[in-house]
Amino acid sequence: MLRIIPLGGLGEVGLNAMVFESEDQAFLVDCGIMFPQAEALGVDVVLPDFTYLRELGDKLKGVVLTHGHEDHIGALPFLLKDRPLPVYGSPFTLGLLAPKLEEFGIRAPLTELAAGSSVDLGEAFRVEGVRVTHSIPDALGLAIHTPEGLVVHTGDFKIDHSPIDELPTDLQRFARLGGDGILALLSDSTNSERPGTSLSERQVGRALEEIFAKAKSRVVIATFASNIHRIQQVLDVSRLFGRKVVLVGRSMQQNTRIASELGLLDIPLGLVVDVEEGRRLRHHEVTVLSTGAQGEPRSALMRMALGDPNAPMPVDEGDLVVLSSRFIPGNEVAIGHMVNRLAMRGAEVVYEGAEDLHASGHAYREEQRLMLRITNPRHFVPIHGEYRHLVRHVKTAHEVGIPDSSCHLITDGEVLQFEGGRAFVNGTVASGRVYVDRRGGPDVPELTLRERALIAETGLVTAVVVIDRSTGALVRGPELTARGIAVPDEAALLADVRREVHAAVESLSPVLRGDTTLVQEEVRRAVRRAYKRSTERKPVVLPLVIEL
Amino acid sequence: MLRIIPLGGLGEVGLNAMVFESEDQAFLVDCGIMFPQAEALGVDVVLPDFTYLRELGDKLKGVVLTHGHEDHIGALPFLLKDRPLPVYGSPFTLGLLAPKLEEFGIRAPLTELAAGSSVDLGEAFRVEGVRVTHSIPDALGLAIHTPEGLVVHTGDFKIDHSPIDELPTDLQRFARLGGDGILALLSDSTNSERPGTSLSERQVGRALEEIFAKAKSRVVIATFASNIHRIQQVLDVSRLFGRKVVLVGRSMQQNTRIASELGLLDIPLGLVVDVEEGRRLRHHEVTVLSTGAQGEPRSALMRMALGDPNAPMPVDEGDLVVLSSRFIPGNEVAIGHMVNRLAMRGAEVVYEGAEDLHASGHAYREEQRLMLRITNPRHFVPIHGEYRHLVRHVKTAHEVGIPDSSCHLITDGEVLQFEGGRAFVNGTVASGRVYVDRRGGPDVPELTLRERALIAETGLVTAVVVIDRSTGALVRGPELTARGIAVPDEAALLADVRREVHAAVESLSPVLRGDTTLVQEEVRRAVRRAYKRSTERKPVVLPLVIEL
Repeated sequence: MLRIIPLGGLGEVGLNAMVFESEDQAFLVDCGIMFPQAEALGVDVVLPDFTYLRELGDKLKGVVLTHGHEDHIGALPFLLKDRPLPVYGSPFTLGLLAPKLEEFGIRAPLTELAAGSSVDLGEAFRVEGVRVTHSIPDALGLAIHTPEGLVVHTGDFKIDHSPIDELPTDLQRFARLGGDGILALLSDSTNSERPGTSLSERQVGRALEEIFAKAKSRVVIATFASNIHRIQQVLDVSRLFGRKVVLVGRSMQQNTRIASELGLLDIPLGLVVDVEEGRRLRHHEVTVLSTGAQGEPRSALMRMALGDPNAPMPVDEGDLVVLSSRFIPGNEVAIGHMVNRLAMRGAEVVYEGAEDLHASGHAYREEQRLMLRITNPRHFVPIHGEYRHLVRHVKTAHEVGIPDSSCHLITDGEVLQFEGGRAFVNGTVASGRVYVDRRGGPDVPELTLRERALIAETGLVTAVVVIDRSTGALVRGPELTARGIAVPDEAALLADVRREVHAAVESLSPVLRGDTTLVQEEVRRAVRRAYKRSTERKPVVLPLVIEL
Repeated sequence: MLRIIPLGGLGEVGLNAMVFESEDQAFLVDCGIMFPQAEALGVDVVLPDFTYLRELGDKLKGVVLTHGHEDHIGALPFLLKDRPLPVYGSPFTLGLLAPKLEEFGIRAPLTELAAGSSVDLGEAFRVEGVRVTHSIPDALGLAIHTPEGLVVHTGDFKIDHSPIDELPTDLQRFARLGGDGILALLSDSTNSERPGTSLSERQVGRALEEIFAKAKSRVVIATFASNIHRIQQVLDVSRLFGRKVVLVGRSMQQNTRIASELGLLDIPLGLVVDVEEGRRLRHHEVTVLSTGAQGEPRSALMRMALGDPNAPMPVDEGDLVVLSSRFIPGNEVAIGHMVNRLAMRGAEVVYEGAEDLHASGHAYREEQRLMLRITNPRHFVPIHGEYRHLVRHVKTAHEVGIPDSSCHLITDGEVLQFEGGRAFVNGTVASGRVYVDRRGGPDVPELTLRERALIAETGLVTAVVVIDRSTGALVRGPELTARGIAVPDEAALLADVRREVHAAVESLSPVLRGDTTLVQEEVRRAVRRAYKRSTERKPVVLPLVIEL
């Protein structure tokens, strides 16, 4: 028996976490966060629901990581802080994970899983790393030997025949596995809506060369700090054009150091200079390599755009800013704002357009087809994507001859069970999103977020009344405090609220006035009525009745 | 003397409103709203600041409208409700405006300004309508004869050599005006970042034909209700393929009626059927034409996607949904959500991709170049766009030989003054965004919105204490009510808050305790300290001290 249970990432982008479970053993593939849409509601991190992992107890033997992106490793500290499970991953993946665990004060056993080698997870599972190309180095697909047969999990992958590190997706190995017979393929669906094939990362280097050839002042390039190959290309092109490189942003500095120590990034001696030297150099001698391509409000690039005097480097008239990444949906407005501010400082900004400034790390449709053909699985499960991406990936599977009965479109929490070559959905487990205010803070229930959203939409009024316990008379109040409400005529409104509240309380018999809950509800409704008349809106009202 | 003063639209998308002012007279071009980003903060409408229009008093002779989009006419009712100025516009523009004014109970004199004809606004100004193509019929550019010379305002325009109504942008007239000598060109910058030329609307019709040819069940097409030519093409293609058309959404029904009455839309007899008949017909005999392409939460399409039983039409397995519009930045997440829900209902969704499913209504760079060349102005002012768009349009102007000294990059509130052929910025007037909760409600100050945003981020606590007036003793409280705050251990937190508040009040001398403001501030700070310890966050605290 084998059960495959996605706890996140199937039906959404991010939050990737998938359980593999046999009779007696289980392990987790990836444990990622999602970047919250609900940022305005004060949520910093979104985690998968760990309930089922807790239920697994000692059956859970460890976590295997496919690569080091936050949506695959970011939730791990929150899981490990209660129970330090063994973690397996490639050197760079573990290199990125280690400082995170350190920050949390977690000591968990980290074991390297290199491409081509295997680890055992209990007696039921043997997991082999298979090299794949992605927008981060040292990414793995997984060949998972299970009691029911071989399952291939692609991780996030693309097929780039000319990757910067000359380590392309190991098609030979996937083909060999396919020849041996694969029970199920679990394949990356992120780009299933895009026809054709993805751009080679090398093409971005050529586009950068053209841009550098024309640049007359500083060049500022913003990209993800984990995109080491992009960074390598920026370093190379900078050297070609006689520019020194200033690294800006904490993660940019940290990731380049880790990658360089692991031999994944080649930084020629003297090429990278610190901010002070960068400021001293003439403009046409400098490249600034920065994070913040998504318009993050506190990023170095945004601070540069806003002209913050404490920003690491200034942006001046004639500087060229290149946003070398895609726009993550939901960030368009923030990015647009940043571009406007850069334009106001006289910089030219190049992004998402005619030029090949970014190559996706995820397989396009033709690459997905190739993966399906080469692995030739008995069952297919689209993973990693919103529902529409999963649906489209199934359609692609049909196009290469995989019948509908062999395609399993499951989403978070659904249990896909394999027994004797058959696959079927066998119930669900707890899944969903867990919101965390910030590191160390408690989980935030969805109800709390809905309260925040409601107050944000309507504003809030507190109304305090004091009732004489013996007579039931309203002796004081309502005392009102309002926040987030626009009132055309404050005095008139206050008088109206007073009238409403007094009438409401007086309409109750002395006995009923002894029921605080009832009085509170009457006060709440009276205040809302008055506000509605005056502002056309019903705010959230917090009534408080004090009996003295 | 001539003063050109943008009150909105220069430095942002939407809110278009521009004052033309001579010594004694003035008029306004357009008066549009902006769709609020701050939707979560309960704001329904964003208006330009009308302060300067009020200051103009009787100098202000009227409003000339370029076309009927909300970002050009939507703020007009809010302006006219205080003062019913004369309004000039093309028949369709006034046709869309009239029901809005009716809703507000406004009676203002509406006068038709057809392409090729002129109106006087005071003695200083004569305004001629010049036909332009845009994503709405009956759109005008304006040739404005002023005391300082001729100013051409393009409105929103594109150059489509094969428009659906065979009424292309009147290049002859623009060329003639250019030959006569133009003081200043004010030209649409929206698409200045896009190279080449925009797609012809007719191309969308061809793409729709291909889609209809393959469709086997219902086809649902979502587009803007004002895009009458798109609607015409959907009607035509539906007839071609033997489908009846159901119109869904209030604005879709209203706009098609108005356009049809004006002869701008040709609806063959019997082609459009009502919802009941649409439900009776077989799936492959129906086209549903709907609003809601932007994922608006209450739109018909979203309700169909969510499977709302009260939605006008169901969406079933095998239906094809076409989003025939661009994604407005900020809406991507909502649209993505809607597409997922449609996919879950078994519909195939086609949007923004390989197919030519939408043609922009705004000139691309080559079209902007053509307008610059053909009008050959002495001065150039980029209008309608965010700052980055305006900057890029200036660059385009340079490329066709307009020197930097003749390009005037002004933004909202800046006064561009022309005198004796010279142009210079002469100070600023009040400008900015006015937030309105909803129709009829009062303006919402920005401070109020910031309060809402702050509460949404941190949650809110009210804390009431009762102080004995004679002794200064804390006789009751703190009574706490919290909203939007996640607390790991409520009892411990409450005990902690109590301790902090009591200590804070007791630390004050009896005299100081008589100072309610001071006590309140102490209570506020005490509550925040305790919450910070327990939740890692400082919520908004509303303290209330009651003296009895």
